[in-house]
Order: sequence, then C-alpha cells, then structure tokens
Amino acid sequence: MDRVTWRTQVLFRHLHDPGPDWLFGLMMQSKLFCPRNVAGRVFVSPDYNQSMEQQREMTMKRIGYLLDRGVFRGWLTEKGPEAEMRKLAFMDVLAIFDHSIAVKLGVHFFLWGGAIQFFGTKRHHDKWLRDTENYAIKGCFAMSELGHGSNVRGIETVTTYDTNSGEFVINTPCESAQKFWIGGAANHATHTIVFSQLNIDGKSQGVHAFIAQIRNADGNICPNIRIADCGHKIGLNGVDNGRIWFDNVRIPRENLLNSVADVSSDGQYLSAIKDPDQRFAAFLSPLTSGRVTIAVSAVYSSKIGLAIAIRYSLTRRAFSVRPNGPEVLLLDYPSHQRRLLPLLAKTYAMSFAANYLKLIYVKRTPESNKTLHVVSSALKATLSWHNMRTLQECREACGGQGVKTENHVGHLKSEYDVQLTFEGDNNVLMQQVSKALLGEYMAAQKRNKPFKGFGLEHMNEACPVIPSQLTSSTLQNCQFQMDAFCLRERDLLNCFALEVSQYLKQGQSKEYAFILSYQLAEDLGKAFSERQILQTFIDAEATVPAGSLKDVLGKLRSMYALICMEEDAAFLRYGYLSTNNAAAVRKEVTKLCSELRPHALALVSSFGIPDAFLGPIAFDWIEAYSWSSTQK
Amino acid sequence: MDRVTWRTQVLFRHLHDPGPDWLFGLMMQSKLFCPRNVAGRVFVSPDYNQSMEQQREMTMKRIGYLLDRGVFRGWLTEKGPEAEMRKLAFMDVLAIFDHSIAVKLGVHFFLWGGAIQFFGTKRHHDKWLRDTENYAIKGCFAMSELGHGSNVRGIETVTTYDTNSGEFVINTPCESAQKFWIGGAANHATHTIVFSQLNIDGKSQGVHAFIAQIRNADGNICPNIRIADCGHKIGLNGVDNGRIWFDNVRIPRENLLNSVADVSSDGQYLSAIKDPDQRFAAFLSPLTSGRVTIAVSAVYSSKIGLAIAIRYSLTRRAFSVRPNGPEVLLLDYPSHQRRLLPLLAKTYAMSFAANYLKLIYVKRTPESNKTLHVVSSALKATLSWHNMRTLQECREACGGQGVKTENHVGHLKSEYDVQLTFEGDNNVLMQQVSKALLGEYMAAQKRNKPFKGFGLEHMNEACPVIPSQLTSSTLQNCQFQMDAFCLRERDLLNCFALEVSQYLKQGQSKEYAFILSYQLAEDLGKAFSERQILQTFIDAEATVPAGSLKDVLGKLRSMYALICMEEDAAFLRYGYLSTNNAAAVRKEVTKLCSELRPHALALVSSFGIPDAFLGPIAFDWIEAYSWSSTQK
Repeated sequence: MDRVTWRTQVLFRHLHDPGPDWLFGLMMQSKLFCPRNVAGRVFVSPDYNQSMEQQREMTMKRIGYLLDRGVFRGWLTEKGPEAEMRKLAFMDVLAIFDHSIAVKLGVHFFLWGGAIQFFGTKRHHDKWLRDTENYAIKGCFAMSELGHGSNVRGIETVTTYDTNSGEFVINTPCESAQKFWIGGAANHATHTIVFSQLNIDGKSQGVHAFIAQIRNADGNICPNIRIADCGHKIGLNGVDNGRIWFDNVRIPRENLLNSVADVSSDGQYLSAIKDPDQRFAAFLSPLTSGRVTIAVSAVYSSKIGLAIAIRYSLTRRAFSVRPNGPEVLLLDYPSHQRRLLPLLAKTYAMSFAANYLKLIYVKRTPESNKTLHVVSSALKATLSWHNMRTLQECREACGGQGVKTENHVGHLKSEYDVQLTFEGDNNVLMQQVSKALLGEYMAAQKRNKPFKGFGLEHMNEACPVIPSQLTSSTLQNCQFQMDAFCLRERDLLNCFALEVSQYLKQGQSKEYAFILSYQLAEDLGKAFSERQILQTFIDAEATVPAGSLKDVLGKLRSMYALICMEEDAAFLRYGYLSTNNAAAVRKEVTKLCSELRPHALALVSSFGIPDAFLGPIAFDWIEAYSWSSTQK
Repeated sequence: MDRVTWRTQVLFRHLHDPGPDWLFGLMMQSKLFCPRNVAGRVFVSPDYNQSMEQQREMTMKRIGYLLDRGVFRGWLTEKGPEAEMRKLAFMDVLAIFDHSIAVKLGVHFFLWGGAIQFFGTKRHHDKWLRDTENYAIKGCFAMSELGHGSNVRGIETVTTYDTNSGEFVINTPCESAQKFWIGGAANHATHTIVFSQLNIDGKSQGVHAFIAQIRNADGNICPNIRIADCGHKIGLNGVDNGRIWFDNVRIPRENLLNSVADVSSDGQYLSAIKDPDQRFAAFLSPLTSGRVTIAVSAVYSSKIGLAIAIRYSLTRRAFSVRPNGPEVLLLDYPSHQRRLLPLLAKTYAMSFAANYLKLIYVKRTPESNKTLHVVSSALKATLSWHNMRTLQECREACGGQGVKTENHVGHLKSEYDVQLTFEGDNNVLMQQVSKALLGEYMAAQKRNKPFKGFGLEHMNEACPVIPSQLTSSTLQNCQFQMDAFCLRERDLLNCFALEVSQYLKQGQSKEYAFILSYQLAEDLGKAFSERQILQTFIDAEATVPAGSLKDVLGKLRSMYALICMEEDAAFLRYGYLSTNNAAAVRKEVTKLCSELRPHALALVSSFGIPDAFLGPIAFDWIEAYSWSSTQK
C-alpha cells in the first residue's frame, strides 16, 4: 500500500539489484549496529548514551563497513533516474537506523559529491567522483558561516585570483565569516567545497564554489587552515560539525567549480549568465537534493513514530468505563484516535507527496528547475514541520515510555529538529514559495494569459462554490475537497497580491511589502502545499483498482483533506466554510476516526519498517520489560 | 516587574534569610557546576556530553555540596507558608541550572518527604523528617507501575497484613505491577514510599502508602527487593529512574502512612472515611506539590528560552531590504516579532498565574483542596504545554544555534518534555478540570443557587455582549477581554453540559458520555485555564501604580488576551467573534507586536535570570565563537 516502498520495490525488481531488504539485513548482521536481544526479539539502534566523540567514531565505522560491502557502489559514477532512485531508497533505509549516518553520508555524497557533479565540469568529475565514491577522500561542504545561514548571498569569505601563480586565494576576513556547522569538518573530512565571494580586480562577482583540501591523508589539518569543533548538539551527535577559518589558502585555478562561470588563467571573469542574481539562482538550483532528502526522511521519521505509538495504543490500556470493568485500550478512546489517526492520514498523504518529489527530482530538466525549487521548498517545510508535530504527539501518546530513548519516538525529535532550519529555514522557504506564486500571478496578469505552472491552472476556471449544507457524502467527495482547497489557495493568492500592491502604492519597497504581508504569505504557502499534497494523493489513489484497498485509501484521503480544513483557521477566518459547515467537517473527522480505527494496525504495518528498527513498546512490552529480560 | 521574583525578594527581605542570589552564587563558585569562561563571560551548565551514569553521579555530588552549605536547612522541619515559599523559590533557582537536580530534589523532598509529612502522622514525622532533610536517608516514591501511570487506582502491587508478626507483606504479583520510572531507585535511594492495594481479610481497601527500605546504608539492595534500571532517556539523565519488584517484603505495621486510614495490630481496618473514592481523593490531595512545581518550573524554562531567543534576535541580522543596505535585525521583522512577542506576553501572564498557584498552595486548607486540585491541574497542563511550544519556537527562531546544547533553548525541550505526561497526563488532567466544572454546573442547577467557586461566578451575571465593531481601544480594554473569555467559558460549559446530558439520555453511561464529549471538554478546559490566567494578570496589574510600567503591563495583558482569541479557533467556530472581529483581533496583535518591540530587551531582562545561566548566543556570540575563544 505504501507507494514509496512499492515504487522502490518495482524499481529493484527491474534492476535485479540488491534492494532495501539486503541493506536492512547487512545492518542487522553486524555488531557495529548494536543488535540487542530483548525478550527474544532483536532490535538495532545506535547507543545514544555514548559521548559525542564515541558516536562520531561509530558513525564512521558503520560507513566503512557498508563501504566494504559495496553499498555505495555507483552512487556517483552511475547515472540516470533509476540509479538516483536507488541511492535515495538506500538513504531512506539508512535513515531508519539513524539520522546521523544518513546526514553524514548526505554531506559526503549529495553535498560534496553533488557539488562536484553539478557545479563542476568534466575535469572535476574525472578527478574526484571515483575517489569520493570509494572514500579515498572524504568531502564536506562549507557554505554557511557564523554570520550567515539562510542568506547565502551575504557570506563574507573572500576569494581572489593571483595571476602570477595562477591560483585562487581564499580568506576568512572576519570572525563572522568563519564556516560554521560544516558536517564532517571537525574530525574526518579531507576536502571541502568552499562557498565564497569571488573578487576579481576589486569587483565582486558574487558567490562561487571552490575545492580546497583541509586535511592530509594522515588526518592532520593542512597549513593555513584552522578548524574548531561546533560541540555537543541536541541530536545528530554522530555527525562531527566543525568550523573552518581560511588564512590565504592557495588552491589551483582548476579548483573553481566552473559550470556557470570561470576565470581564465590571465584572470578574466567569464560567464554566459550576465545577471549575478540569475547566476546565483542557476548555480544553487542543483542543491535541491538536500531538500528532497529532508522531505523524504521526515516522512519516514513520522512513520516510525506512528508505527510505535499506534502499536503501543493497541496494547496499552488505561481506566475502565464501568466499575470493575476491563481497562480500555488507548486507541479505543475517541480522543486518542483523534490525536493519532489524522496524523496517520497526513503521513500517508505526505508519503505520496514525497514520492512525487523524488520523481520530479530524478527526472529534472533545466525547464523544470523552477517548479522543483518551489515544490521542494514547500514540501521540505511542510513535511519537516509535520514530522516534529507528529513525533511530539506520538511521544505524549506513549506517556513515560515515549521518553525512553530505546523507544525512539521521543529521541527522534532531537535528531530531526534541525531539519526545520537547515537547508533553508522553513519560514524563509515558505515565503519564497508565496513570492514565486505571486510572480506567476503577476506574469499571468501582465501577459493577460491563463495561469500555467505550479498547479495554479485551477485559477483559470470559475471560482468553486461550497454547498451551504455539507453532507457526509459531500465531505468525503474528492471533488469537493479539491474545490475547497483551490478556493482557499485562489482567494489567498488574490488577497496577497492585493495587499502587496496596496503597500507598493503606499510607497513601500517591493521587499518591504512582502515583509509586511507575511501573514497572508504564510497562509498562502500552507494552502499551496496542502493542495499539492492532496493532488498527489488523488493521483496515487487513481492507480489503485476498485476494492477494499481503494476504499481505505479514500478514507485516508478524506481524513487528510478534512483535518486540513479543521486545523487551518483560514477556512473560518476568510469565510470559505460557514460555522455550520465547519461543525460538519469536525463531526466527519470524528466519524472517520472510528472508521479508520479497525485499519490502524494494517496501516502502520504497511509502512514496511522492519520490526528490529522499531522499539520494545511497539510489541509485547510487558515481556520486554520483565525481570527475566533484564537478566540477559 | 516580574512578580514571582518580586514576591520572593519581599519574602526574603522579611525573613532576613539568604535568598536566591546567595544560591546562584553558591553554584557559580563551585567547579561541580562546571563554570566555563567564554570570551570573558562565565557560564555555568552541566556537561550534557557525559554518559547517563556520569550525569547521575554529578547530580548527587552537587546535592552533597549544597547540603553541606545548608541550602536545604528547614525544608522539612520548618513549617508555614513562608518556609514553603522559600523552598519553592530555591527549587526555581536550582531548576534554572538544571532540571535533573530539581527533579532529583523534588522526589526526595516533595514526594518522599511530602508523603511522610502529609500521608503520615507524628510517628512518621519524628522518625523520618530530620533524617530526610540531612540526607541520612535518601527517599524515593514508588507510585507508577509498568502497567499503570495516570490511573493510580488501577495499580496491582498488593499488600496484606500478617496478624501473627504484626507486619505488612508487600508483593509484586505480576510483571505489569513492577514499579517503573521511580526517580532515585536505580542508584541512590535507600527508602521508598510504596503505593499498593491494601488487602485485609481478602477484601481490597484500595490504594495505600507504605514505607519500605530498599537499600542498606552501604548502598546494597535489601533482601526480597529486585531493582533494574529504566535506562537512557531523552532528557533528565541526571536522575536515576529505576524499576522495583517486591517479593513478599515484610515491613512493620507502623510503616503504613496512616493519615486517613490505619490497621490495628489485630488486623482491623480503620478509617473515618467510609467511601473508598473519597478516601482516595483525600489521600492524594497533598500530591498537588508536584503539579505546582511543574507549573512554576515550566514558566522559568520558557523565560530562559525567550531571554535567549529574544537577545539573539536583537544581535543577529539576516537579509537586507534594500540592495546593498544593511541586513535587518531579526526582531525588526514583523514575522519574527509575531513568533516571539506573543509567547513573551503569555509567559508573563503565566508567571502571574504560577505565582497565584504557589500562594494558594502554601495557604491551602482542607476547604480549598478542591479548588487547588482544579487550578493546579489546569495550570500544570497549560503551562507545561506552553513551555514546550515556546522552547520549540525559540529553538527555530535561533536557527542552527538553537541546536547547540550550550545555547539551552533546544536542549531544554528534551529536559522538560516529560512534564507533559508525568504527575498526570496533561490530557487526563484537563478532562478532570472540565468534569469538575460540570460538577459545579450540575450542583448549581440542582440546588437552584448561584455558581460559587472555580471563578464561575460570572455565570450568574447577564451574558456578555461583544460589540459588532471592535476598535483598537475596545480590543485593549480589559473588561472587553474578560467578557470575551467569560462568554467563551460560559457557552462551552453550557454546550458541554448539554452534550453530556444528551448522551446520558441516549443510554450511555456517565463515564462514556464524558469520553464521547472529549472535544468540548478540551475546549472548555482551555477556556477555563485562559480565563483564570487572565484574571491573575489583571489582579497583578492592579497592584502597580499608574505609570510607564503599568502601561507596558497593559500592553502585555492585551497581547495575552488577544493572542488567545486569535489562536483558539473556538472564538470563530462557536461564533463568539464574527470574521470581521477576528480580523480586527489579528490586526491588533500585529500592532501590539510593534508596540512591544522597543521593550523586548527590558522585558526579558526583568526575568532576573543571571547572565551565567543563559547561553553564549544571548550575548556577543561573534566574540564567544571567535578563534581566540577556542584557544582557552
């Protein structure tokens, strides 16, 4: 039922390649992955009671083990959508074990390796890709600085070109320019991509990326490089984040990643793209991979949380309804259903959306880059926020057991929290989404043509009308649901455009008008994301033949649509739903909770996460926590 | 300005006793509290990179140091509201350093010590209180079991009385009856309160509390006691939570804590309270201390989070509005103000509420127990949820710096998360609040008399009317704000009573009718809590003379009231606010954000948390993270 798993499996069948089961098995076979027998059941999970230093070394050892078994074969040297899908699927599997190992690999393969692939040209590919895949070198990615994170254009590292020696000279001109949060830099990385302002003949050409060596093969730090540790973090302590200062570090001219711009040996700046803003956008667009993997791993993390919390709620009882009657299973309380089952429906919906995002990513073309940027920004923010909220609810739903590290739900929060702000702060990303939608709105107005792109084509149709009396059958109808979502998006886009134009008329700058209209921008970003997600659900549902599976999917889709309507006050605030209709939505959500209750176990089982990667409370926890189990 | 600090200081002045400053100073003087010099500024904070085992030992060592300096003198042997207020203030100060030390002390003094004081009688006081205060013995509190947490009445440990030997015999009859999450049990505690069903002549008399020794003076586990570790947790790893099994453990008859019931030497069960439900309620009522300290410490945690995030937002810049213009301070973005300043206003409001709770706790009488139970339940849930939400927003508002452990905001989440479910799951507590309000409603109907108690007297007045056009001056008017809150509470209580009665008419049991009406119960619990909090704000404001301080307090109170209206969809859902009025509320919140912006630094400074207990990003973080600072 889970489309992500399903599609992955189809791919693997096609390729006759080892698949996720093989990788899950590799991990379960090795002591490095800390297998633990609890009441006859094996669980694997890192030992999070280790110090940061120990966790970092373990992450590196695990990578070495997987490397020796060929897990990363072809990750940078094979091309095409299928190879990319396989790599993404393997990343999902590894992230199910531990977020640190996934992030550490992500930095090496997707950020360092991806920068070589996409910012570099043949000379870089030939020199670096195979050594990266084999871990002959270890790469990191020095973009953010102490003073600049989301605002990459503002970074202060400066690179100049020395015509005499034919070298670039990289410098950290002030303390706020130190590279900060660089995963891999504190202990293991030998090389880094350095993002820096490129200064040619006293003129800044904007941000460019260079390759620099920071450690030699023995692990000693290179001359003119200073490195410090970012220290202990609330999670992800298996990743060695570090800080880097460059003291006039000299690198060969060839180390400029020259896909969009180059410097000739005599110091001429050469680029086909004249506008620095456009150059910057073209340059950064391949970085989407980070947002794609965050969005996808956020959904897997939600799945782990829900699989554990729902399984626990089907074995844990509390309070009885009748005097001396049996205690009631947690999931038989309507209030407990209301806490978990809407999140389950959302997670299904977002799983379809994440899969869609993967597909448009691996099939990307220069023409689709803008759509990919907007969709990946919206989904990265929406799915990572959803994940944190889901984990928090799951943790509380598990009571005290949710704070026990080995039961994962609570621990995962600290591991994944960073997703909300890295690879672009979620709020900033959502503002970019709304700006892009407004751009399309203005363009459509200006050329007096229909909307085209970002799924806004519905704006070309007549405005949907919501019936004044919503019956259960209407509420569960997918056309009604899409109408309500489109109505919201259309109206919010109109309101946003109007408000921005009013600020402009009052003499505000365009940038400041956006800043003042932040509330409508947020509402619109949410409306866009949720409509996009609903669409991927409907598309996925359409591929399933009529039958009980399709029926359950329909209920999940209705739950997704209606819970979005109930939770987003915009529906009442802007009058898309009357108070009567909002009451009908609320009632239907309760009804859907009881309709989905019997399917809860099947729905979390179909996530396909092996039992060993869940926690003891997902199974017979009385046995797991029995005295005899403590004696082994 | 901070009333909690203010009242504490008044008390200390009155008592001529060492106050919070003395205790802050004691911590800063000792290496045990890990003072660290960062760019000329000293910070104290536990080393959270230590293993669970190391953190536990450090907590115990810190307690030993404070004990030697007389910090706990009188905590159990001095009586009266002033001594209790001093103890609570010291707990606040210690919790500002580390939640583990506060919880470890809370278990020993408030749970073990409090049980002796309030469940016991003179024979227990004489024998145990001084030894507890001196740490000659170390106490723990074995209430929750693997199978039962919030539902204490369902615990399965069984105690019988042996007439021949005059002893009680305590037994763990099954694995789900093992005591679980017992703070102090894994390593340090020598004695425990055991909650158990008391079985006399084959008849269960319900839950009672007994004293049992679990370790001898050498730290070895006593015969017939088995102990296991609860293991690593997502936070609070300085507390050694353990599990206990009792194998027919024999204790003297005098070890029954006999404040409400006793067993005579010949085995007769004696109690003045015949109804087991009432007995249970009378018995547990002194446990309020746990909810009081949780509510209070939740507010302090929010204050730490906001002090750090707001100070950072006043030094960190991102993006410029004009090309090549200076980057904008985070707190000058209206969206950033909107994220933090409403939480600041709520934290002020809740600080007043927490102080009110402290006062009614230390002045409690048998008559006020019911009110104390309801108010402490409502505030424990509301303030701890607020704390988690505030810390999450502060963490995101600090970007990557929020995940650095030394900057606290992210780390505090894991430390405080457990508050949402311990000492009563928040959802369960809120249901109890609504049930109590309904009880008062039914009683008032039945005796056909006005409402009296729980602050419901407003129900005796005419129903407030909300003007159809809300101006800024109305919105900032405290009578309007209170009217809106009372209207919501009154209507929700009426709706809840109606819905429950309809379910009863349909033949549902009373318990099940409550279970089905959970949504109205939740809405009502929130309405009650927020009205109660607003009232404490208004009361506090009234004590301040006219002037600029009162003006700022008025703005904070308006922000509190209006953000509650904006965030609780009930105002729109049930029609207390029209969409026009809701839009006016939203606009006013934005206006208040800009009006409070200039006071932001003063408002967090007045929390009175010493700089050393905040993190580096609250100050000159460029200097703190400079290369030269890493070299010390």
